[in-house]
Amino acid sequence: MTKTENIMNIATKRGFFFPAGEIYKPIAGFWTYGHLGTLMKHNWENLWRKYFLGLSTNYFEIEDVNIMHKAVFQSSGHLDNFNDPLTECKKCHFRCRADQLIEDALERSTDGLKEKEMEELIKKNKIKCPNCNSSDFDKVVWFNMMFDLKVGATGNETVYLRPETAQSPYIAFKREFSALREKLPMGLAVIGKAFRNEISPRQGFFRLREFTQAELQIFFDPENIDKADNWNEVKNYKVRVFLTKDKKINEISCEDLNKKLKLPRFYVYHMTKIQKFYLEVLQIPKDKFRFRELSEAERAFYNKIHFDIELDLETLKGWKEMAGLHFRGDHDLGGHQKGSKEKLEVSIEGKKFIPNVLELSFGVDRNIWALMDIFYKAEKERELFQFDSIISPIQVAIFPLLRKDKLPEKAKEIFETLNKEFICSYDETGSIGKMYRRMDEIGCNAMITIDHQTLKDDSVTLRDRDSLKQIRVKTKNLKEVLKKFLEGERLEKLGKIV
Amino acid sequence: MTKTENIMNIATKRGFFFPAGEIYKPIAGFWTYGHLGTLMKHNWENLWRKYFLGLSTNYFEIEDVNIMHKAVFQSSGHLDNFNDPLTECKKCHFRCRADQLIEDALERSTDGLKEKEMEELIKKNKIKCPNCNSSDFDKVVWFNMMFDLKVGATGNETVYLRPETAQSPYIAFKREFSALREKLPMGLAVIGKAFRNEISPRQGFFRLREFTQAELQIFFDPENIDKADNWNEVKNYKVRVFLTKDKKINEISCEDLNKKLKLPRFYVYHMTKIQKFYLEVLQIPKDKFRFRELSEAERAFYNKIHFDIELDLETLKGWKEMAGLHFRGDHDLGGHQKGSKEKLEVSIEGKKFIPNVLELSFGVDRNIWALMDIFYKAEKERELFQFDSIISPIQVAIFPLLRKDKLPEKAKEIFETLNKEFICSYDETGSIGKMYRRMDEIGCNAMITIDHQTLKDDSVTLRDRDSLKQIRVKTKNLKEVLKKFLEGERLEKLGKIV
Repeated sequence: MTKTENIMNIATKRGFFFPAGEIYKPIAGFWTYGHLGTLMKHNWENLWRKYFLGLSTNYFEIEDVNIMHKAVFQSSGHLDNFNDPLTECKKCHFRCRADQLIEDALERSTDGLKEKEMEELIKKNKIKCPNCNSSDFDKVVWFNMMFDLKVGATGNETVYLRPETAQSPYIAFKREFSALREKLPMGLAVIGKAFRNEISPRQGFFRLREFTQAELQIFFDPENIDKADNWNEVKNYKVRVFLTKDKKINEISCEDLNKKLKLPRFYVYHMTKIQKFYLEVLQIPKDKFRFRELSEAERAFYNKIHFDIELDLETLKGWKEMAGLHFRGDHDLGGHQKGSKEKLEVSIEGKKFIPNVLELSFGVDRNIWALMDIFYKAEKERELFQFDSIISPIQVAIFPLLRKDKLPEKAKEIFETLNKEFICSYDETGSIGKMYRRMDEIGCNAMITIDHQTLKDDSVTLRDRDSLKQIRVKTKNLKEVLKKFLEGERLEKLGKIV
Repeated sequence: MTKTENIMNIATKRGFFFPAGEIYKPIAGFWTYGHLGTLMKHNWENLWRKYFLGLSTNYFEIEDVNIMHKAVFQSSGHLDNFNDPLTECKKCHFRCRADQLIEDALERSTDGLKEKEMEELIKKNKIKCPNCNSSDFDKVVWFNMMFDLKVGATGNETVYLRPETAQSPYIAFKREFSALREKLPMGLAVIGKAFRNEISPRQGFFRLREFTQAELQIFFDPENIDKADNWNEVKNYKVRVFLTKDKKINEISCEDLNKKLKLPRFYVYHMTKIQKFYLEVLQIPKDKFRFRELSEAERAFYNKIHFDIELDLETLKGWKEMAGLHFRGDHDLGGHQKGSKEKLEVSIEGKKFIPNVLELSFGVDRNIWALMDIFYKAEKERELFQFDSIISPIQVAIFPLLRKDKLPEKAKEIFETLNKEFICSYDETGSIGKMYRRMDEIGCNAMITIDHQTLKDDSVTLRDRDSLKQIRVKTKNLKEVLKKFLEGERLEKLGKIV
């Protein structure tokens, strides 16, 4: 089995995620989070929330509807431009993305190609239909990826499911700018669903038709783009950057990114925070992380500066986009001001201007997949996820050694106490060995076993998932020991104090 | 201004919620949560999650997609039965709900009426069109309230936005039952969006087209319906019940509900938990809470037992449904087993059966509105929300008395420390009086002011929103004092220990 298959096997069997509606015929690109996946996703979202909203006293989260006005996407440009190139096999009527067809067959990029150029490439190279092997394709047309629907009883009002969460803060800007006392920078985050009618979603859990985004839109005065409040704190910090010109990862100090590469300080400051979130909070190994500069052909016209945040994933054969940091200028508020005729220009100390936007955009589901890829480990006797306790779906598992002699009662009592402080699970269905293996497989950090000795001296066994070592701990010290253990203290060291 | 207008005024101005897409023409039934509303909604959701998932070690949350198979709603019956009666004015073509038309004009219930009966009532009473005053209405037809859309590039696969979160646990049952080691009762909760294309949504924030539900589906062995693990703990507890037969609220012990009213213990046990959630966790005054029994005409055929949880709301002129407790029998798993041909029957210790479902279903948005209704208070000089600290969007506000003399720096320092433990806000834009008023208006519990004396003796002023009393507290004791204060300790008592 491949690593992808191994991870998928655990994910579906143990309750991380599985194809939505699988008791019926599942539709590609829709997945359900099971009970473990939901716990893990909440962990990730709460870490993101705490870290990025913690960057300023003026950064907040809002929650918007998924169904939005047609007018919103007229102003944003999605109605005209949010398209994928579609082609159809004339023989079997199989429809697919023209760019993917070319990329797969010719192993080349299609960035910036026009529809005619794609048609010619398909024709000239006699690219075959993946469905029937014929090589007679129809014209390439642009297919809009938004889902449209009708609202109301008359059936003549078309609305859309948002294809990104970003529009919500732009639409709510005026209201929130007033509620938050007209200060800039102001940050509005959304953690929520987005919907894209992908022509042919691939890569399993990595490219979804319904997915979760965590996005922070920071509104600021463009004149301050080369200012960052805490510049001195970060100026010597080195960011891992992959530039289009030299095609390798360089570790470049913020000072140099600002002075030599002319990246504005406000942008660079947020690069450091994103890198710290991955390396220090999520504990991603440094060599699997980079910022990749996008070429002009790759990036949207309104993104004046655009680096993707990429992780190196074995299951997806290389560097994959996890997030993006986009300086979008006044494209967003300018567009909505024009479209809505509402004044979105602000006036601060007599100066009037349209706030610019710096967008931090994360795909939550693909970040979850990345954690599973990076922390998966196959050993001779077992498979496990070496999750840090801040990300594990279950931090502590409690088992009775046997289902008799009042051991379950004692175990449940300990479960109740620990569950107030940690994410705990109680299990009694199986031999202790099987219960350990199951908990290894879901990345549970600590396992507590209650046995006959517990009833005598009130001590339990604490087992470390990674080292497989065990120590005995008095129940009165259990909370303190677990707290230190989950914060990263090694078991050997804890063994001495209990 | 009415109370509704007063609350709406604060809600939209301060960032609780406002009509979605209001810079364009808003569509009825869609609302955006601003930064305060989002904080408050998270509080509510986290309290719900902690309380109801805490009822068993085998209750978990899952997260599903909003876009679901047509087949799901064929099996569930939504395609056939999830309809509202629609009629159209022949003169002006205004469309509206026939039942609402009748209820408004005749002040009577329409529960259980067939379309012909409604047509006759409209005709006989010459009910007028709310739009043009004519009284010539077309036939009453059933209008399906689900939003449909197309997925994929061919445009021939119809899917639906889920009209309730409940179907997700039913569809995921097989997978999760296996992942959770085949034990019953098993609970699967979803906190998520649901979508209903209401013909004419009214009541502002109370009836939405896109809304959030918090639902717990408990799967159990129907033979155990008269068992509850902790029956002895609850049997003398009194539940506030409004029965169809006597039309008043009675406080009836669980023992009597079980023995005299023949409600099964598993059902009654969950009634007590829901009542405790409202009275003890959310601190709703007892006299505003009741369970209302639904008559046979009112309840769906698959709901064998159905009580609504209602709160008495001044803004909505009486008792309003906040949640429901439904014993649904084997309708759900039975229907999906038939529709999907997948075996959803379980086998436990040799006994084969289709698990039955007890559903706890809460509307999150209307619960938020209810809290605002119940805790709103208008005084001579100010308006305020008397939220308990577990529900307040902001628990502690920190202000410098002046924007000079290093007071803001000191205030920010204190903010940073307190923000680690409480939900805090920092403000310096206004006079201290105005900042106090703004915080009263959003229900902030505690206000801390940093003044010149702070720089001398490291003490600050702590102001109580409700009593308006103030005490001075040493900053080194501030965390401890705030913790006790937010847990409900009175300021006078705290004044003595600081």
